[in-house]
Amino acid sequence: MAYDKTDISRLNDSDMEAALARTPVLLLPIGAVESHGDHLPAGTDNILAVRLAEELVKTIDGETPVLRLPVLPFGQVWSLAEAPCSFGVSNETVSNTIVEIAQSAAQKGIRTVVVVNAHLGNAVAIRDAQRRLREDGITLANFFYPGAGPVIEDVREKKEAHASYMHACEIETSYVLHLAPDAVDMDKAIENYPEFPEDFSTVAYRWTDFSKSPVLGDARAATAEKGEKILKVVLANMAKQIAVLYARQFNGNS
Amino acid sequence: MAYDKTDISRLNDSDMEAALARTPVLLLPIGAVESHGDHLPAGTDNILAVRLAEELVKTIDGETPVLRLPVLPFGQVWSLAEAPCSFGVSNETVSNTIVEIAQSAAQKGIRTVVVVNAHLGNAVAIRDAQRRLREDGITLANFFYPGAGPVIEDVREKKEAHASYMHACEIETSYVLHLAPDAVDMDKAIENYPEFPEDFSTVAYRWTDFSKSPVLGDARAATAEKGEKILKVVLANMAKQIAVLYARQFNGNS
Amino acid sequence: MAYDKTDISRLNDSDMEAALARTPVLLLPIGAVESHGDHLPAGTDNILAVRLAEELVKTIDGETPVLRLPVLPFGQVWSLAEAPCSFGVSNETVSNTIVEIAQSAAQKGIRTVVVVNAHLGNAVAIRDAQRRLREDGITLANFFYPGAGPVIEDVREKKEAHASYMHACEIETSYVLHLAPDAVDMDKAIENYPEFPEDFSTVAYRWTDFSKSPVLGDARAATAEKGEKILKVVLANMAKQIAVLYARQFNGNS
Amino acid sequence: MAYDKTDISRLNDSDMEAALARTPVLLLPIGAVESHGDHLPAGTDNILAVRLAEELVKTIDGETPVLRLPVLPFGQVWSLAEAPCSFGVSNETVSNTIVEIAQSAAQKGIRTVVVVNAHLGNAVAIRDAQRRLREDGITLANFFYPGAGPVIEDVREKKEAHASYMHACEIETSYVLHLAPDAVDMDKAIENYPEFPEDFSTVAYRWTDFSKSPVLGDARAATAEKGEKILKVVLANMAKQIAVLYARQFNGNS
Amino acid sequence: MAYDKTDISRLNDSDMEAALARTPVLLLPIGAVESHGDHLPAGTDNILAVRLAEELVKTIDGETPVLRLPVLPFGQVWSLAEAPCSFGVSNETVSNTIVEIAQSAAQKGIRTVVVVNAHLGNAVAIRDAQRRLREDGITLANFFYPGAGPVIEDVREKKEAHASYMHACEIETSYVLHLAPDAVDMDKAIENYPEFPEDFSTVAYRWTDFSKSPVLGDARAATAEKGEKILKVVLANMAKQIAVLYARQFNGNS
Amino acid sequence: MAYDKTDISRLNDSDMEAALARTPVLLLPIGAVESHGDHLPAGTDNILAVRLAEELVKTIDGETPVLRLPVLPFGQVWSLAEAPCSFGVSNETVSNTIVEIAQSAAQKGIRTVVVVNAHLGNAVAIRDAQRRLREDGITLANFFYPGAGPVIEDVREKKEAHASYMHACEIETSYVLHLAPDAVDMDKAIENYPEFPEDFSTVAYRWTDFSKSPVLGDARAATAEKGEKILKVVLANMAKQIAVLYARQFNGNS
Repeated sequence: MAYDKTDISRLNDSDMEAALARTPVLLLPIGAVESHGDHLPAGTDNILAVRLAEELVKTIDGETPVLRLPVLPFGQVWSLAEAPCSFGVSNETVSNTIVEIAQSAAQKGIRTVVVVNAHLGNAVAIRDAQRRLREDGITLANFFYPGAGPVIEDVREKKEAHASYMHACEIETSYVLHLAPDAVDMDKAIENYPEFPEDFSTVAYRWTDFSKSPVLGDARAATAEKGEKILKVVLANMAKQIAVLYARQFNGNS
Repeated sequence: MAYDKTDISRLNDSDMEAALARTPVLLLPIGAVESHGDHLPAGTDNILAVRLAEELVKTIDGETPVLRLPVLPFGQVWSLAEAPCSFGVSNETVSNTIVEIAQSAAQKGIRTVVVVNAHLGNAVAIRDAQRRLREDGITLANFFYPGAGPVIEDVREKKEAHASYMHACEIETSYVLHLAPDAVDMDKAIENYPEFPEDFSTVAYRWTDFSKSPVLGDARAATAEKGEKILKVVLANMAKQIAVLYARQFNGNS
Repeated sequence: MAYDKTDISRLNDSDMEAALARTPVLLLPIGAVESHGDHLPAGTDNILAVRLAEELVKTIDGETPVLRLPVLPFGQVWSLAEAPCSFGVSNETVSNTIVEIAQSAAQKGIRTVVVVNAHLGNAVAIRDAQRRLREDGITLANFFYPGAGPVIEDVREKKEAHASYMHACEIETSYVLHLAPDAVDMDKAIENYPEFPEDFSTVAYRWTDFSKSPVLGDARAATAEKGEKILKVVLANMAKQIAVLYARQFNGNS
Repeated sequence: MAYDKTDISRLNDSDMEAALARTPVLLLPIGAVESHGDHLPAGTDNILAVRLAEELVKTIDGETPVLRLPVLPFGQVWSLAEAPCSFGVSNETVSNTIVEIAQSAAQKGIRTVVVVNAHLGNAVAIRDAQRRLREDGITLANFFYPGAGPVIEDVREKKEAHASYMHACEIETSYVLHLAPDAVDMDKAIENYPEFPEDFSTVAYRWTDFSKSPVLGDARAATAEKGEKILKVVLANMAKQIAVLYARQFNGNS
Repeated sequence: MAYDKTDISRLNDSDMEAALARTPVLLLPIGAVESHGDHLPAGTDNILAVRLAEELVKTIDGETPVLRLPVLPFGQVWSLAEAPCSFGVSNETVSNTIVEIAQSAAQKGIRTVVVVNAHLGNAVAIRDAQRRLREDGITLANFFYPGAGPVIEDVREKKEAHASYMHACEIETSYVLHLAPDAVDMDKAIENYPEFPEDFSTVAYRWTDFSKSPVLGDARAATAEKGEKILKVVLANMAKQIAVLYARQFNGNS
Repeated sequence: MAYDKTDISRLNDSDMEAALARTPVLLLPIGAVESHGDHLPAGTDNILAVRLAEELVKTIDGETPVLRLPVLPFGQVWSLAEAPCSFGVSNETVSNTIVEIAQSAAQKGIRTVVVVNAHLGNAVAIRDAQRRLREDGITLANFFYPGAGPVIEDVREKKEAHASYMHACEIETSYVLHLAPDAVDMDKAIENYPEFPEDFSTVAYRWTDFSKSPVLGDARAATAEKGEKILKVVLANMAKQIAVLYARQFNGNS
């Protein structure tokens, strides 16, 4: 089978020159190496970021020109830094890496970079990169499961552990079951509803300060079907936004 | 087949806790996204870094406890930054990423990190990281094809393009033919002996200033056998040094 | 009337030495100079931060030893930077300022600093400062209207302009009407429900990209009573958390 | 009474737009939170900076368009950092804050910013900001009691403690007695003539290394009349320079 | 003739080990490459710094152990940066250079470093270095013509151009005539009394903004005798302070 | 005898203005203060850098306009930092110093700066400066004994201590014997062939980790004749490259 012609890792110089001539949108998957308990591996967020980018390419199906970089596998994992599987870098390093890659791409005529992010901890760094790159006239879009919210509400069976954070839970595990089932060991899935400290939103807590497991919620309720249902919407949203971002390039907007 | 138990991306928390208890040596593959002409893909250095680390794990065969991180795929590609497939970051970002990952690992008891580097452009950043980490009592070892030199002299059939630099040439292409043959398209292999400027060692040149192709040398002479011959020695050297580095940890040296 | 004995601006050296002996919690109000339309002044967030800190002192009523610094009046105002009244600084400067003040305080024995924040744009900088100071064993707490959410839902009459952002609206104007009525000119209050771009959560937008006014929502519905109702809960929550933070200092936690 | 129309904290967007159309000179008061003994409060320099800016506005009396920012209350207090009331930041933070505010103002068409400084410790940071902003074509003027010298010589009754430094002394206390008499407690005024180390100008001394009190000189000799006499000249000088700075903007100078 | 045994440039390892055993005070001359008009060369400040250090060593005459580094020849020359002979670096670079050299020396047991400075423009950077090094327990002393003031008043025949600045004038030229007469071409000495802008102390001026020559004052009045008279006092002061600084090392002070 | 008219330290403003009109190439000698054993002094690299620049000027003999700055005497000496005579700075400081001097020169119309480097440890910093300055359109050339290699092979009598490093050895000592014979004490010359650790190229070693002397090789075999033979070729190469660099300035290349 022919390899994916949007996968930069597999392109040669002639391929790339042809691709660049179409002013493609550049996808940069980004995840983290981080503890996800015993039912999901340390590479979960990287697996999800790569698989989402692959599925996105299939969803777009050549209608908009895109290129896909390899995953940036080291993210900011402050909250779980002390958990066994977490190997992370600072916000500043994540932000600088993204900015430098985007500037590197801009030298080749690329004007739009999309971060396909599967790790919430990277959000601050991405936001910082977005604002810095805007000064250079480069659009950095951040895709973090766009449009997932309402579908999650719909499919969720078990209560969430926290209004703002979910991790290795019913939902995220469902994503992996759908996109990379071999990576999940459902026999080891647990529920974990740690008691968040009263001042959790006020003081800087690592999750290891109050929870024995990085699982936040009930992973046992995860199913591939739930994952598919949510991600189908997410991917459709992503594909639609890619088309908008691509068109923007020719409208004098950045 | 069971997955590789040294691959952190596949480990869960219990696996990792058990692994950490043995004070493993941590492997960090590092490559680059960089033009390699038309017979090798942009991801060549990342493919090589990952495959070398995998082969190293097989060579070690459990005799020394090691763990393997995902490849850091973005390197410093200044010399070829203007070639179509190059998407790079600064020396400072490479160095900071390595330092922060190693410090993150040190918090878990890891004292020795080995960079399995397949891209010469990362050398300055790695050296900088080595010296900074030494201040923290962390040993950072740099594996860049250790011991390859004499074997290369032995197997080489075509002259080298430059005494200090080789790229996408007889030798590197042979590595890929041996480790990842699917990534090579030998039909597109060329020879390219650019005329280096007289003051090449004096002034900062990008290779694109004087060469139409990123190939430096004669890629047509590459064979899997040459690659195997060199890398067999390289891997044996790596394995031997891993054992030394592991033992050093218990000798009060860093 | 005697001045407020918790107001550092008014303390002399003997006062301060006595105060420090009680290991007080240090309050740092922080706001911004930012456009708030025509019914609220540029200093709105500073006025709110100062008044909240004053009211908090009254609510605590001497039960926990606290000290109050002058307001840090320059915040991060990226989203409204191009509006006429916005004079801001970078996230890095906000973060460094807070960190340095807290370190300065720690040299005098203070272990707990509470940011009384009235400007959402400062959240990222405060989070960064919290994590950096934790490394130094200093607790930085962030008070951004704690517990306001449910009461807001209760008192709100007009719909919100955006799920995550509110500004110069029914709610914020109500705060000012309660805490500093002279600062409001209700005759100029407007409603403004800008159409947020479809990709608002994906791309870095300044609010001035899509809205003619910095008002987000309907300011005309603001009343002092609504403000009082919400802030009464907020202040009670703050006072309670101050007590907890004070006690924590003697528990070996930071 | 109507509020001061030059006080940005009280302006709304329409006010500001009208004000900006006149290319106003922007005043930024800056002080410090710093020990001043027992007769003056920690906020002395901030009180002075704000009051000077207010009086300056009155002195200008609308002849030159000016706007006034809130006081930047945290200055560099290295020399007295270990005294009880000192809460300070680094030179770099003071300098960055000023530069960023001025750049923020320049985006709105303001070309001239005047720091009304009441704390000598900020001088180095202001100088640095002046030079950086000059590269951007922005004029940053530094008002630190311009023209006070000869009048001080005239009114002074007690000897000075040091040729270069005065603090909380006959002169500074006189300023506060004139501008903010409620902030002074003359009953606690003292004289303090510490013995400066022989190598004071050669080695980095904190004042707390050799002096028990932050008072340098004889505060008991302070009077509101002395303060008024000096500051009348100072304010006239300031007003005159404001007019010159305003005019410069239209001469192609920066 | 035997070379100077305090000149590190001429020491070998055995010499140095012996010297270090005596806990010497380390002298670091620092000057600048800067325009001085036509009667003095660009290297004037470096010549003065080196010659002062040499004379200081003779004055000390072995009574206190000292070592002398080569001159740091690049200083901060902002005010004259646009004059033809000025080649300078930033305050930050001067400061970092001094700090790193002093830290390097501290690793060898040296606790006291004396900057023999002949260029006023370096003052801010030196002050910054002093404060940073104090945190490390290293004393950095700054010798900028200590005690020259009263003697200058005594010998000066021509009026000074400015109360705070003198440059390439009667006084500085006299220093060079005394210490390095071959470097002076008195035939080209001029007087230059530029009109300083009214707002010179308020706004950041380069001297080239208002003066055609870098000479500030009347260089024609310079004589070797004047130079000798001033520098005799300066050197005696320096020698005395060196003795004090040396003794301090054994008193637990830094 | 008239002084060297290319030595900036001796130029006055009129000289310099005339010199700048010819668009000269600027020479910046750079060395280090570093242990060289007992037969060579700490200033060896600085002596060599200055003497090479002087000889280069003679070799050029006015055919190409050049100017010569004073030597930057503090280099990066990490490998020998713990040896007694080493007083060094960081790579970053070396790099920043060079960049700032070159930018300072560029403001005067100089487009080409040549580092005459006599200390290998500066190579990384110079490379970094080259790349940064290229962005500014400034050519920074690095002269580190160009063309010495083959002649060294020819004259060498004793084996080298390491393939990549030589220090205070037969070759370097020969350089000093030729250029500054007074600085050498051949009676103290030794041979030293330390055993390099097996993993020397893999791990960050300081030379003091494994060698008692900084001499790498056999200094006893040094002669002035060997030095002359090598440096004659080196200087001819340098002069030739200067001519090329000078000409490049007028070809639109940088």
